[in-house]
Amino acid sequence: MTTTETRLERGHRNLAQIDGSGGQAVIDALADIAPDFATYLLEFPFGDIYARPGLSHRDREIATIAALAAMGNAQPQLRVHIRAGLNVGLTRTEITEILMQMAVYAGFPAALNGLFLAKEVFEE
Amino acid sequence: MTTTETRLERGHRNLAQIDGSGGQAVIDALADIAPDFATYLLEFPFGDIYARPGLSHRDREIATIAALAAMGNAQPQLRVHIRAGLNVGLTRTEITEILMQMAVYAGFPAALNGLFLAKEVFEE
Amino acid sequence: MTTTETRLERGHRNLAQIDGSGGQAVIDALADIAPDFATYLLEFPFGDIYARPGLSHRDREIATIAALAAMGNAQPQLRVHIRAGLNVGLTRTEITEILMQMAVYAGFPAALNGLFLAKEVFEE
Amino acid sequence: MTTTETRLERGHRNLAQIDGSGGQAVIDALADIAPDFATYLLEFPFGDIYARPGLSHRDREIATIAALAAMGNAQPQLRVHIRAGLNVGLTRTEITEILMQMAVYAGFPAALNGLFLAKEVFEE
Amino acid sequence: MTTTETRLERGHRNLAQIDGSGGQAVIDALADIAPDFATYLLEFPFGDIYARPGLSHRDREIATIAALAAMGNAQPQLRVHIRAGLNVGLTRTEITEILMQMAVYAGFPAALNGLFLAKEVFEE
Amino acid sequence: MTTTETRLERGHRNLAQIDGSGGQAVIDALADIAPDFATYLLEFPFGDIYARPGLSHRDREIATIAALAAMGNAQPQLRVHIRAGLNVGLTRTEITEILMQMAVYAGFPAALNGLFLAKEVFEE
Repeated sequence: MTTTETRLERGHRNLAQIDGSGGQAVIDALADIAPDFATYLLEFPFGDIYARPGLSHRDREIATIAALAAMGNAQPQLRVHIRAGLNVGLTRTEITEILMQMAVYAGFPAALNGLFLAKEVFEE
Repeated sequence: MTTTETRLERGHRNLAQIDGSGGQAVIDALADIAPDFATYLLEFPFGDIYARPGLSHRDREIATIAALAAMGNAQPQLRVHIRAGLNVGLTRTEITEILMQMAVYAGFPAALNGLFLAKEVFEE
Repeated sequence: MTTTETRLERGHRNLAQIDGSGGQAVIDALADIAPDFATYLLEFPFGDIYARPGLSHRDREIATIAALAAMGNAQPQLRVHIRAGLNVGLTRTEITEILMQMAVYAGFPAALNGLFLAKEVFEE
Repeated sequence: MTTTETRLERGHRNLAQIDGSGGQAVIDALADIAPDFATYLLEFPFGDIYARPGLSHRDREIATIAALAAMGNAQPQLRVHIRAGLNVGLTRTEITEILMQMAVYAGFPAALNGLFLAKEVFEE
Repeated sequence: MTTTETRLERGHRNLAQIDGSGGQAVIDALADIAPDFATYLLEFPFGDIYARPGLSHRDREIATIAALAAMGNAQPQLRVHIRAGLNVGLTRTEITEILMQMAVYAGFPAALNGLFLAKEVFEE
Repeated sequence: MTTTETRLERGHRNLAQIDGSGGQAVIDALADIAPDFATYLLEFPFGDIYARPGLSHRDREIATIAALAAMGNAQPQLRVHIRAGLNVGLTRTEITEILMQMAVYAGFPAALNGLFLAKEVFEE
């Protein structure tokens, strides 16, 4: 059955499983500005990359949370992926450790801004 | 015995285990420009952060490889941590997947430059 | 007549034509913190660079929108330049395409944050 | 005939037309580290984005050269796209203007490093 | 007496002297998400780095304000350090000059966003 | 006499005093790719900004070294400004302290890459 699933269908399935309602909200928000971009977002990141067998969804979220916190210029997406990390099995402690570790590689401000976002997400 | 270990000793032990000779080479290179910074590097990242129990060394290297690849301005350190990833149990496939995934969050150039570094490390 | 125009006068003229009221608001906001910086902003970007004949204002705004969206840490300026793009003849479709394309070079978050800013500007 | 062209085929066609041999060299270099990533690179940027009708290839290269120069951490890709700009009809003067303009948005170092790369490409 | 002061005590002392209530607010905000990170923040930046004799606190704040403004993705920390600059003896004029100068190295948006933050801090 | 000095003349004088031969080499290298950009580089950073009385050249170089090290994507310019720092009176110790401090705000890789550049400059 999977073999006949399109990239878009697989993307919808992975987005729902990983990002939950936060991911769907992004897709919805794109509808009246760039609906094709919503399709690309479903197809490439979620239909192609997150569908690959070589790395678990849990490990992929470690990578995404670390990258977004280190870059420091994608706070809305970091918020979505802190929630996604919880969805795929990362504990609050693990997410906190990832964010603290970013102080080493991207500086204390990157870690602090990530931790304060996590605090907001954990309190929801 | 661990209880009497200093931060510096713990840092030396973790650096050797995680980064191997690549980490020691960085410490040595600092000797005649900023020896105190070598101490800080051992003490804070390796004596404090990597010594914390809440996240495995393997998971910490996923985060570090992702962050350095996404930032794209720390190629010498990314090289050290691709080797470190192998040292703590990440497979070549897993490292490749982490780097590919960075295309989604930091763009295709970040992923490409990370993959080409990994290719060099894997060929050593 | 142009030959007797000062850099500052030329900057005022270009700023008004390109950025419209958004640019003037920036100049006004600088008055009580750094009035000399308002002068530099008029003189160098708008009196020197945007006055050069080698690239049209339309093409310059493609470059600026792309750069600001890719950098991802200059959202107020990106907002001003999405408006400026419309002022100098870029269509909404063209601006949307530029922003979508940034997913390739700077990642999906950079594109998404640019697109959501454009959505706000287009709805004004 | 175009309607039956796959994303991968369209990507190959666009890559050849835009990036020329520089793009193919990147694809070849990925073969023994991440061949699937070569496929994604062909399919998403070149099969999807560059195939869209809303912005000309010339205008897309203005955006790409500007973004890569402003980011400043993707010099190999900036080199490829300065060549690509020439391939799709940008003049040397236009490329030089785009790079000079980046001084305004990303600082003089970003502009200088872009200009020195362009100098190398123009001298080939 | 200083010789028996711990890193944590020295960090508390330096944080209070340099960042004042803004620094303490950050420490307090970490209490229920990552209390250990508050300890690291006191110990490494303020107990180790700012305690070093080779550069005055005034000069250290020039460096910090410049770095945070240039990075452009750490506005909450830039705000704290504009206040810190005033605390350790930088004048408003000097802080304004540092921020204006960032236009040269990181672009006009980085300088503008820093100047508008300084305006808010100076008006407090 | 200063009152009749043009921005370009003032820029030449400040560039020679601050950056020495390293700055002139940059100007020379621009001659056959973008000679007007050499003029802008002399006029705006060195004729306008570095000519302002509100901050000493020594303090300006603290800011520049910090910013370039933190950004991490402008190594040729950081090299020029480490030399410039020495030219305007910063000691090797002070430059080393500035670079070490960047570990706090931009991460250990930024500090390490700055320190290794400084080591090369100091050994010249």
